[in-house]
Amino acid sequence: MTWLWKLTPPCVSRKKEKQMSIYLDYQSSKPVDPRVVKAMDPYFNKIYGNPSSLHSIGDKATDVLEKSRSKIAELIRAKPEEIIFTSGATESNNLALIGYALRNKNKGKHIIISEIEHISIHNTVKFLMKSGFSVSKVPVDHHGIIHIDKIKERIRDDTILISIGYASNEVGTIQPIKEIGSLCKEKELAFHTDAVAAEGLIPLDVIRDFIDLMTLSSNDIYGPKGLGVLYKGKGIKLTPQIIGGGQESGIRSGTEDLASIVGMAQATEIVLKERKNEVKKLKLFRDRLIQEVLEKIPRSHLNGHPEIRLPNNAHFRFDGIEGESLLLSLNDKGIAVSTGSACSSKTLEPSHTLITMGLLHEEAHGSLELTVGRFTKKSHVDALIKNLPGVVERLRKLSPLF
Amino acid sequence: MTWLWKLTPPCVSRKKEKQMSIYLDYQSSKPVDPRVVKAMDPYFNKIYGNPSSLHSIGDKATDVLEKSRSKIAELIRAKPEEIIFTSGATESNNLALIGYALRNKNKGKHIIISEIEHISIHNTVKFLMKSGFSVSKVPVDHHGIIHIDKIKERIRDDTILISIGYASNEVGTIQPIKEIGSLCKEKELAFHTDAVAAEGLIPLDVIRDFIDLMTLSSNDIYGPKGLGVLYKGKGIKLTPQIIGGGQESGIRSGTEDLASIVGMAQATEIVLKERKNEVKKLKLFRDRLIQEVLEKIPRSHLNGHPEIRLPNNAHFRFDGIEGESLLLSLNDKGIAVSTGSACSSKTLEPSHTLITMGLLHEEAHGSLELTVGRFTKKSHVDALIKNLPGVVERLRKLSPLF
Repeated sequence: MTWLWKLTPPCVSRKKEKQMSIYLDYQSSKPVDPRVVKAMDPYFNKIYGNPSSLHSIGDKATDVLEKSRSKIAELIRAKPEEIIFTSGATESNNLALIGYALRNKNKGKHIIISEIEHISIHNTVKFLMKSGFSVSKVPVDHHGIIHIDKIKERIRDDTILISIGYASNEVGTIQPIKEIGSLCKEKELAFHTDAVAAEGLIPLDVIRDFIDLMTLSSNDIYGPKGLGVLYKGKGIKLTPQIIGGGQESGIRSGTEDLASIVGMAQATEIVLKERKNEVKKLKLFRDRLIQEVLEKIPRSHLNGHPEIRLPNNAHFRFDGIEGESLLLSLNDKGIAVSTGSACSSKTLEPSHTLITMGLLHEEAHGSLELTVGRFTKKSHVDALIKNLPGVVERLRKLSPLF
Repeated sequence: MTWLWKLTPPCVSRKKEKQMSIYLDYQSSKPVDPRVVKAMDPYFNKIYGNPSSLHSIGDKATDVLEKSRSKIAELIRAKPEEIIFTSGATESNNLALIGYALRNKNKGKHIIISEIEHISIHNTVKFLMKSGFSVSKVPVDHHGIIHIDKIKERIRDDTILISIGYASNEVGTIQPIKEIGSLCKEKELAFHTDAVAAEGLIPLDVIRDFIDLMTLSSNDIYGPKGLGVLYKGKGIKLTPQIIGGGQESGIRSGTEDLASIVGMAQATEIVLKERKNEVKKLKLFRDRLIQEVLEKIPRSHLNGHPEIRLPNNAHFRFDGIEGESLLLSLNDKGIAVSTGSACSSKTLEPSHTLITMGLLHEEAHGSLELTVGRFTKKSHVDALIKNLPGVVERLRKLSPLF
């Protein structure tokens, strides 16, 4: 690793690591579970065949690929043949929307999404609009919840697909997915849900919720990055988006990344066994964060629904201060937080989700997202609660708005 | 890993592994170098930030991402900003061809490829043909070499892009890339080359060879699977194929797979340091395979050019026998080989490359591809040479064709 050290001397990086030890930004990125790394290890250079090869080494890779597929299918009560491996949630969202729209455009060219979808959904429908599709966006209430009537109002004769995220990766609000699925079934519309924010936290069930297409990410269940899944129910037809050797039943070509796939299967196994207890712990942390922050800091507010929210998410706004300043001040104290979706946070635009929930621009700019996870400790929560009130107070003193 | 063991008892898998110890199919898949696995390790759960996050953990990820990009750029004498990370060579080929065609269709709608491109190129141009593009395919001579005149003959007023693989991943023939690049420059056409088969073996130079777009794969230099690169020279415009948060300068969205990217950078570092000696070793093995097989087995023939070929590739055909039977017989003796491209070998079609080189169907069916690599030992080559003559003789006795 001399090429990396040449530019980052180990002493500096060690110092930085020590400084930055409290991570409350699980929404942006998750560490890979050490048990997952261990499970992946043999697949780098002990079992390394190409599943398309005809010899025993290739057969073994095929065997492991299919067992991993079966395990991951269990996470959402799907059949193994309904699991398509992709390079991540963004690609899965692209494949679901563009793949479905292009393949089914003879049935109609209208798509419904919500106002608070992930940026990959918003940008994908922008592309579809340039290709002659029309798109309606369903608003949310001030808690970030989508109401079924608002969807019904937007269904037209040429509607073919509804895509609504399972839960907001920003404010944590959980949507009435079963109700939406049921409506889609009744109206004979395809239903896609990006379940990335919910996947390790809520038991998912494509049968119960009448889901036709579901996006999953490996990293969001503490598996490796660079791997995602698109669940595609029986009878749903898609136009492939990456074309080549015909892997993944011809829907997604490219040599399979077996080590990562085994990693995601192992991550699934851990979720299936440990979710219940893990969620209990996360809820305690979340509730403590919400209670103490609202109590200790005057003119602080919780964004999102007080109850119908992800067990790992606490999302606030503070009158008179900017989220960015808050993030940087906490960063100086070794605490990593977010002001919203990491996927678009390098722009200076206020969060589209918060604006559509009815917040003013200055309110949306003053937001802070805390997400806890598998490796969060009580001491991390304590540190945030100890440091945040002082940081807010100091920033307010400097603020011309307050 | 109990979920995997439940179906593959460790005793069985250990037995299989012992049986199958000689791997002469580096073209299909490569083990990840242990030094690469070691370099990746901290990026699973020690340095795991999202480069899009604004805190120090995110900054550190950005820093590592950009240093890795610079290192990989060195492999082909590119600038760091010309390196786009993708999920693999198939996606890179899709992005190069579809991305360039869609973005530049106002200049013309004609593309030239060769008859012996990888299946992802063939299938991608099929898709473009459905979208109104026309495609000409350049034939090869009996050695698998593309002649510049055959390209010239096919250039039309509406030609915008030429895509020719650097070397054949099947028969190993190396193409006159600099000559083709020079022609493209003269005619003001964009030049794409899929350099996957050549990348760890031949010093690549996008400046010297006038290359505008180049496909690379991480695994083909002993890096992890699920990661590729598209080199895009300055001034070349592409329509993004995966849309979302705007990563990779807006050309390829999706959270970056930092562990794999560090792995590919480490793999690059090893290639830059060790290629010269490694290639010497591979050539000795390859030449010994060619010499001994042709000498020991009557009516055996070398496919591809006798000299202008990849240092790791020996490709044969044997009168009167089928490649599949040969593969399975060698498999029984613990030797893994290929009959052609793993990416399409599960079909029973004869290799398109061999047919276009002028071989008869029965000749193309009797082919055997041996590819050596970094972990090949003299004893592996010896074992092949010891076993192959007997296998061929036995199969010929059973053959109605011989």
